[in-house]
Amino acid sequence: MASESIGFIGLGQLGTPMVVNLLADGYPVRVWNRTAEKARPLVDKGARQAVCAEDAVEPGGILMTCLSNDQALESLWAEHPELFSRLGAEGVHVSMSTIAPETARRLAGQHAERGGTYVAAPVMGRPDAVAARGQLYLVSGAAAAVARVRPPLESIGRQVFAFGEDPGAAHVAKLASNFAIASAIEALAEAFTFCTKNGLEPAAWHAMIAETIFACPIYKNYGRLILDGDYRRPLFQLALGLKDLGLVSQVAFDSRTPMPLASLLRDRFLAAFAHGRGNWDWMSIAAEVEAQAGLERELPTS
Amino acid sequence: MASESIGFIGLGQLGTPMVVNLLADGYPVRVWNRTAEKARPLVDKGARQAVCAEDAVEPGGILMTCLSNDQALESLWAEHPELFSRLGAEGVHVSMSTIAPETARRLAGQHAERGGTYVAAPVMGRPDAVAARGQLYLVSGAAAAVARVRPPLESIGRQVFAFGEDPGAAHVAKLASNFAIASAIEALAEAFTFCTKNGLEPAAWHAMIAETIFACPIYKNYGRLILDGDYRRPLFQLALGLKDLGLVSQVAFDSRTPMPLASLLRDRFLAAFAHGRGNWDWMSIAAEVEAQAGLERELPTS
Amino acid sequence: MASESIGFIGLGQLGTPMVVNLLADGYPVRVWNRTAEKARPLVDKGARQAVCAEDAVEPGGILMTCLSNDQALESLWAEHPELFSRLGAEGVHVSMSTIAPETARRLAGQHAERGGTYVAAPVMGRPDAVAARGQLYLVSGAAAAVARVRPPLESIGRQVFAFGEDPGAAHVAKLASNFAIASAIEALAEAFTFCTKNGLEPAAWHAMIAETIFACPIYKNYGRLILDGDYRRPLFQLALGLKDLGLVSQVAFDSRTPMPLASLLRDRFLAAFAHGRGNWDWMSIAAEVEAQAGLERELPTS
Amino acid sequence: MASESIGFIGLGQLGTPMVVNLLADGYPVRVWNRTAEKARPLVDKGARQAVCAEDAVEPGGILMTCLSNDQALESLWAEHPELFSRLGAEGVHVSMSTIAPETARRLAGQHAERGGTYVAAPVMGRPDAVAARGQLYLVSGAAAAVARVRPPLESIGRQVFAFGEDPGAAHVAKLASNFAIASAIEALAEAFTFCTKNGLEPAAWHAMIAETIFACPIYKNYGRLILDGDYRRPLFQLALGLKDLGLVSQVAFDSRTPMPLASLLRDRFLAAFAHGRGNWDWMSIAAEVEAQAGLERELPTS
Repeated sequence: MASESIGFIGLGQLGTPMVVNLLADGYPVRVWNRTAEKARPLVDKGARQAVCAEDAVEPGGILMTCLSNDQALESLWAEHPELFSRLGAEGVHVSMSTIAPETARRLAGQHAERGGTYVAAPVMGRPDAVAARGQLYLVSGAAAAVARVRPPLESIGRQVFAFGEDPGAAHVAKLASNFAIASAIEALAEAFTFCTKNGLEPAAWHAMIAETIFACPIYKNYGRLILDGDYRRPLFQLALGLKDLGLVSQVAFDSRTPMPLASLLRDRFLAAFAHGRGNWDWMSIAAEVEAQAGLERELPTS
Repeated sequence: MASESIGFIGLGQLGTPMVVNLLADGYPVRVWNRTAEKARPLVDKGARQAVCAEDAVEPGGILMTCLSNDQALESLWAEHPELFSRLGAEGVHVSMSTIAPETARRLAGQHAERGGTYVAAPVMGRPDAVAARGQLYLVSGAAAAVARVRPPLESIGRQVFAFGEDPGAAHVAKLASNFAIASAIEALAEAFTFCTKNGLEPAAWHAMIAETIFACPIYKNYGRLILDGDYRRPLFQLALGLKDLGLVSQVAFDSRTPMPLASLLRDRFLAAFAHGRGNWDWMSIAAEVEAQAGLERELPTS
Repeated sequence: MASESIGFIGLGQLGTPMVVNLLADGYPVRVWNRTAEKARPLVDKGARQAVCAEDAVEPGGILMTCLSNDQALESLWAEHPELFSRLGAEGVHVSMSTIAPETARRLAGQHAERGGTYVAAPVMGRPDAVAARGQLYLVSGAAAAVARVRPPLESIGRQVFAFGEDPGAAHVAKLASNFAIASAIEALAEAFTFCTKNGLEPAAWHAMIAETIFACPIYKNYGRLILDGDYRRPLFQLALGLKDLGLVSQVAFDSRTPMPLASLLRDRFLAAFAHGRGNWDWMSIAAEVEAQAGLERELPTS
Repeated sequence: MASESIGFIGLGQLGTPMVVNLLADGYPVRVWNRTAEKARPLVDKGARQAVCAEDAVEPGGILMTCLSNDQALESLWAEHPELFSRLGAEGVHVSMSTIAPETARRLAGQHAERGGTYVAAPVMGRPDAVAARGQLYLVSGAAAAVARVRPPLESIGRQVFAFGEDPGAAHVAKLASNFAIASAIEALAEAFTFCTKNGLEPAAWHAMIAETIFACPIYKNYGRLILDGDYRRPLFQLALGLKDLGLVSQVAFDSRTPMPLASLLRDRFLAAFAHGRGNWDWMSIAAEVEAQAGLERELPTS
């Protein structure tokens, strides 16, 4: 089943478990990372360590990148222009980062000039979910290329959602999703604070909504974690949430879209960051909401 | 099973189907409404029409009220002080309105002075859901009284959630819920607009989140209705949403709770109202979000 | 010149220096206050202490009230209904409180029923300005009554601005003014923080705008005080600013006026209050702005 | 007195009247513009038209640039790298654009590598004010270079304010100023709308504050223009205001500074732009405030 050889660049918290699972599923994987030692544990599991970025790519093959932001992705291709020709006319670049749709479209254009194809495939899921194959992939790009990369993505993830041929589309979908999650965190945090200040145990209210009108993973899980005050163990770092909300805000600005709730969230993340919560979980904006209302509580030591 | 005779005051969009179902379940019901003709269809179904407010009450019995706001509820008791003594020491007032917790606590105190009991029981569900017995009751108040009124509420509704003995608590829970729902509407509307302005069909994004991270009634149903632009058929009138958000905002102010998202929603509802959408459904704040971004679309004629 | 005898109820931080100056200008003044000892120093200066509220009023005379809020003013007239008839058909009630226009209109109606007249005359100026006769009076009400009360107001204040016959109008003007001042404080605080975080000394920027585009008392004085961090000596208590912004917000809601900047300020004052700044000066919302950005500085001990 | 020969690039609405006045004051000026025909009227007044960008620069001389944004300025230097060496070690680049401080610092670094000097000199004033020599210059950079460029700037402007040696500082000051002005417009617009909706003529309120607590150019002039509804004749285009608020927002984000009022303004400008007001004056965000409240009025035809 697993036949395609895959190049993988970007061995961070998300990339690493993906490679582990690709290997487990029988895919030959060549890995490369700017800091080479991150490849070591994967080599132990059967990955081949590329000697340079170019070496990670099989001509006409699939190259997956999982880098932290627009700049990291753009730098990779700007500093290693040989990657375009190495990937070649038949090659597909599967780009898993959460980035601006314009960055994706620009990069897709550069690929197209060389015959290659850019497939957007931002991943939705935290590292532990990725390790457990629970992540979703939001994909968009040329239909044939999308069809080709589906098998490995479906192999290591829970589900693949396709958003058409525009290489920016899946990135738009990813940003909209993170915005919606952050909105839910803010709404829960304000509601909890409202309950507390008015004599109602927020856990009682949460139990009710989480089994009725808001019976879904985001409200159940984040609600529970916020009630526990389990903010300091980062499943998704606040600094990354800040980056994503900054991106939503910039894309909204560039597309002339007033989004006051996104603006509120952006300022909330900025304040949380300024208060030293950059390394906490992004749900810790809830701690900001509480602090604004003068509430203090003992947080669990994780 | 149904044995208690019940008095019911407030025969509006929610009260009427409740009485219908109480009657269907075998409860004797005496009804009274400021505008008497609203009682007629219920009398046809077996209700007894009270000749005055006092006549709706059985001494020591259960009186349910379902009035539109704090003022209507307070006026009832201010204009009919004889109701307190008529209800008497054993009587229970089941108050289903969405009101400020302080109003409830004040009224509960007035009942307590005469020996009677106030049970908060705001209802969560739209008229069509109430007719189909799908509504939830959020209740709080003295335990014995709550236990007594549970059977009729469980008989006509889907579920009863209890929030302890504070007569204000269930009202806090109701306000927090409506705030959370309105927040989800705003988040969906901004996300949809963001998608549209950036070349992604919002329905595609919605289909994905509604079956994964946000797979719950609010996101599914409101999302679908907003995408359809089915704003003008009011399931829950925007004017009522405005009133509720105004109440959230006032309770937040009185309890010294900064809630910027609630403030944003309050202003959003004010703008929607100023634009003539008072009689539309409250989800039509989404039309405001779109209009702010310069998007116009043909709405369905319902 | 000073001939009219004047009744004065409400001997707080603003009322007291006004009575001092009325006495200095030769007006006979009868004073009354809920806590009677506040009258003592004024009696030493020549005021006559009324034995009861009614005794402060000369039939057909001028009664000035300077109470802290809507409730205090409404309670006075509700608890002392004899004041209406005592004041009589020729009497004028000069109401200096910052209150909702609807409260004023309602009270004006009650006066009118008895033939008396309500003149709105909210005062703009801090206690030290009032002592130094620097305050402004914003007045509205029946023209003849306004003409009659102008001399004493002009005698003790810097200037009287008239806003027509609607007894609510001057209160609207006062609320709009306090909103505008709070807005300027927020704008200055955000701009200062922006400068500091980007390497520019805010005092340098302030010196420039305060002698050019914003060369006016609010920007000059508040700017200087914020730069000095002189927040803790209350010239105008934050708790009063909170009350005023709450009033702006409520009047905006009741008149269906979305005011996002007023909402932002309301939440800002709520947070400042929750953080224990209720007794600081209202400009200390600037300390909130700084704290949100992670800035801390040593404040002067006043 | 005027002796220095000056190169001038960027002959738009602000650059053109500056060159006119430099010529009138006896400065020899070489002009260059991407669209060459804009130079014609200036040549008629005595300017020398440069044949290329490089030709506008005298080795070791002063080069003024007045371009519309960061991109335009950066493109100039990226596309004409010969300008650096042409300007040479003694040359000074006087940069009048409203740009991000980081852009200025980066460009200053590039100048420094070649021995030249970057002086920030953003201009504050609309085209008509510039023509009448009423504009201010906010300057920062190396002291000697600032001293050298003061005479021509003081010759054609009203006043020069210096903000130290950091080449970004004057740009920070300019952005803070535009933020403060936009804040005042929003505050006035909300206050006016509040007055109107509550029965008070906003012009009456404005007359009072504009001669007392807010007696300064911004509140007087903008207030008057907003009351007149004179929005459509652009003195400062809304599209430029949008760009500036976007810049404030981006610089705030990059410096981790929550600025909710700046965010509110950014969304306000986005909405105004989406509603087709890009070519109106930036004060027309007031029309948005009115429209949000459901107010409509006939605007003057300019």
